[in-house]
Amino acid sequence: MNNDVKAKWEAFTELVRKITAYNEAISLMHWDLRTGAPRKGVELRSGVIGTLSAEQFKLRVSDEMGEYIDYFTRPEVDGQLDDTARRIVKECKKDYDENKRIPAKKIEEFSVLSAHTQTIWEEAKANNDFASFEPNLVKIVDLLKEFIGYWGVKGTTYDTLLDKYEPELTVAKLDEVFGRLRERLVPLVAAIQASPNKPDTTFLDQIFEQEQQEKMGLFILGQMGYDFDAGRLDESVHPFAIGLNSGDVRITTHYLQDDVTSALFSSLHEGGHALYEQNISKDLAGTPLATGTSMGIHESQSRLWENIIGRSRAFWERYYPDLQKHFPQQLQDVSLDDFYRAVNRVENSLIRIESDELTYNLHIIIRYEIEKMIFNEGLEVKDLPKVWNEKYRQYLGITPPNDSLGVLQDVHWSGGDFGYFASYSLGNMYAAQIMNTMKKELPELDQYIREGNLIPIKEWLTEKIYRFGKSRTPAEIIMQVTGEELNPDYLADYLEEKYKEIYKL
Amino acid sequence: MNNDVKAKWEAFTELVRKITAYNEAISLMHWDLRTGAPRKGVELRSGVIGTLSAEQFKLRVSDEMGEYIDYFTRPEVDGQLDDTARRIVKECKKDYDENKRIPAKKIEEFSVLSAHTQTIWEEAKANNDFASFEPNLVKIVDLLKEFIGYWGVKGTTYDTLLDKYEPELTVAKLDEVFGRLRERLVPLVAAIQASPNKPDTTFLDQIFEQEQQEKMGLFILGQMGYDFDAGRLDESVHPFAIGLNSGDVRITTHYLQDDVTSALFSSLHEGGHALYEQNISKDLAGTPLATGTSMGIHESQSRLWENIIGRSRAFWERYYPDLQKHFPQQLQDVSLDDFYRAVNRVENSLIRIESDELTYNLHIIIRYEIEKMIFNEGLEVKDLPKVWNEKYRQYLGITPPNDSLGVLQDVHWSGGDFGYFASYSLGNMYAAQIMNTMKKELPELDQYIREGNLIPIKEWLTEKIYRFGKSRTPAEIIMQVTGEELNPDYLADYLEEKYKEIYKL
Repeated sequence: MNNDVKAKWEAFTELVRKITAYNEAISLMHWDLRTGAPRKGVELRSGVIGTLSAEQFKLRVSDEMGEYIDYFTRPEVDGQLDDTARRIVKECKKDYDENKRIPAKKIEEFSVLSAHTQTIWEEAKANNDFASFEPNLVKIVDLLKEFIGYWGVKGTTYDTLLDKYEPELTVAKLDEVFGRLRERLVPLVAAIQASPNKPDTTFLDQIFEQEQQEKMGLFILGQMGYDFDAGRLDESVHPFAIGLNSGDVRITTHYLQDDVTSALFSSLHEGGHALYEQNISKDLAGTPLATGTSMGIHESQSRLWENIIGRSRAFWERYYPDLQKHFPQQLQDVSLDDFYRAVNRVENSLIRIESDELTYNLHIIIRYEIEKMIFNEGLEVKDLPKVWNEKYRQYLGITPPNDSLGVLQDVHWSGGDFGYFASYSLGNMYAAQIMNTMKKELPELDQYIREGNLIPIKEWLTEKIYRFGKSRTPAEIIMQVTGEELNPDYLADYLEEKYKEIYKL
Repeated sequence: MNNDVKAKWEAFTELVRKITAYNEAISLMHWDLRTGAPRKGVELRSGVIGTLSAEQFKLRVSDEMGEYIDYFTRPEVDGQLDDTARRIVKECKKDYDENKRIPAKKIEEFSVLSAHTQTIWEEAKANNDFASFEPNLVKIVDLLKEFIGYWGVKGTTYDTLLDKYEPELTVAKLDEVFGRLRERLVPLVAAIQASPNKPDTTFLDQIFEQEQQEKMGLFILGQMGYDFDAGRLDESVHPFAIGLNSGDVRITTHYLQDDVTSALFSSLHEGGHALYEQNISKDLAGTPLATGTSMGIHESQSRLWENIIGRSRAFWERYYPDLQKHFPQQLQDVSLDDFYRAVNRVENSLIRIESDELTYNLHIIIRYEIEKMIFNEGLEVKDLPKVWNEKYRQYLGITPPNDSLGVLQDVHWSGGDFGYFASYSLGNMYAAQIMNTMKKELPELDQYIREGNLIPIKEWLTEKIYRFGKSRTPAEIIMQVTGEELNPDYLADYLEEKYKEIYKL
């Protein structure tokens, strides 16, 4: 950089740091609201979050920002930037371009509408009353279509929504991978259903004291390499992970006395998210690159730890004796094999968030196909229950008895989060593909897990993925790590191999 | 208000609400840093606090703010404002006037210098090395004198500093009240020292389990009327209370296993601060008036609850059996009278924060007199140890053996907080004066306390003080509640009566 560019860069960096400072403050307020803020302060707090978000938004679409972007994208200036600097500019430009075009009153309208619709959805779900939810959902979809116009259509209309959660992902690509996945998983699920070799899960139906669950959860997080000097574990209604900065990545869990697996696997899941954020290179601090590169890659890390490692036989060979020590009464007579099979049982169920590692993907594919129909094929909101139920019958062989157990089950659409669901299955596919490479590069991986030596896994993932934060796109990450594009066969192979053994197919 | 004024007022209110929103976010970040933020995130977090503080500062001294103040102080507009509105404008104007004049680089310089000097002070205190602290303290004093020039001298130079913590308080008034207080307390302290009837405190020197201390603290807070739906109790190294908004006022405590009185009285103390903030009228939310009116009035509430109520015989008549139930082994053979006398023992000690309810005031008077000498009478920093030791000998009859136990004991000066100390004794004086009125207006007060019926006390204080927040000045509050100006005789009377009985003088 010459001196002019350098001076300008420093000033730009100040603006960017300011914008990320708001993120940290706002994230802390959200964390606090969900972990123990007193209820009488919530209303005023929500106003504070709104005010600071609006202040930050002004900076993101400010003329000052516009001028910096204009300057740093001039060819003679761009040529002087290194790769990281160029990506910072690109991130800011994307955000600026997309949001600058939307009239402030539209953003306000959307924010009011989505908050209101979430309340309506809660009631509709409780009352099994899709009709009361429908008019607002129509408004949300219409407003989103309008926003897509402002954002600029990428490929198909629905591509624009996908890109918000998984940059550069397209319907063309997802049709291909989800099509292939569905093709391989539907018969596998059917075969499992027909198998007479079902795991016995009755022993899970006992009381497991919370104090012991806590101890076990903290132990496992420590084993994964979660850094408690750069994070903390709290309780909340729904578990989550949140990165305030790379030295402060918090997770929460929720203990159920009658389900020992819930908090255990959610700790592995949120721990996976947290490892990612804790190990982003410090060089990226204060930039928009100091976060996970996409929802899908983030989810690949939670699911790699929760499912591929956390529900593996090797893992429980090492840790099941510990679990038994924490719950001798409940588990002393349960064999490792029985435990392993029980935590991997497959059941065709109606509710996504209660589903297993295998059928989960079919729940997602259904949502993806429906969202695509809404935005690309003119499916009307009023027809959602019919389409939903038909697809459940077709892919999972079960039909929801009512909309509360069907199309009304998820919060996402009421908040306008169309395009988000795909990330969950992308995470599973990325995770299996990454794991396939890891096994080749760490030939003793199984042995490490069997010995409880999980740190080399964290280190390999840090080296290959975590440290880059958002300075690589998801497609670049997956290519760089595995040498090929996203390929759903790795997930299908992994699931087939695992479940053929468990269900003796 | 006519329509023009009304429209302008609404826009002004938005700006004011924005400024207070930053306060809430920044306060939450401070609370978090002191209650459990992971250590590796502290450095980046401090940067975030700095960034948001700077953003807020810009709004406080913005041209927009200047224009509003100009507009709302025009006689024809001012005449249309109600009292609360006028006070909001006055608060903003004071802040604007004082800070607008100081060059940004001076504020930066002060903030860097004071942060640095606090570190130096810590080392100086640890090493008993006043000389290493002296040069920085000289710089702090010089810079403060420069600031006083910008702020505008009110009466005497030191008045300007007093006004920052206790609006409109003057040296003339403090000389009078502290002079009178010293005159009455010094002989009382001497008489106590000479008394052969010393309380036995040996039974306090036992182990009191933390879990039981927690239970007792929560119980007492509930009895005071602290609203746990509008607050929470956490642990921190130094106890504090912090109001995020009136529905979210948090307190912290610190448990010492070998000192049951520490957490107990600190809960009463911080609980008193919190009751004030929890009961400010909701109408003031989002304005600069939604806080305590001054450090002194705030401290009057913490000390009224901690000392005048919390160390009274009536209080322990009701609650000592509870305390005994929590600690049967430690306290079953200790009588109420012995306990009451022990928690009220007077000892001429060197350290302010360890001192008792009575001699505490002499520690403060010493600091006040020295600060006044520095700013009004040209006392040089290098002479502080000598003056300090001389005053301790004169008022308390003891001489610090070294500066760590003398002039270096408090953090305040290293951070530039000259003018602050007076608030502590003001709090004691206000509290005694307020209590004198409360006893007249609630003739059965003693009986209420003896029965553990503390809610009428909270309600009386809410009606008379809490609800007004900062919409009354400290002088107005004390006049409105007690019908007279600050009068130190109430504190002296209270202390004389109490300690003559305890020490059988």
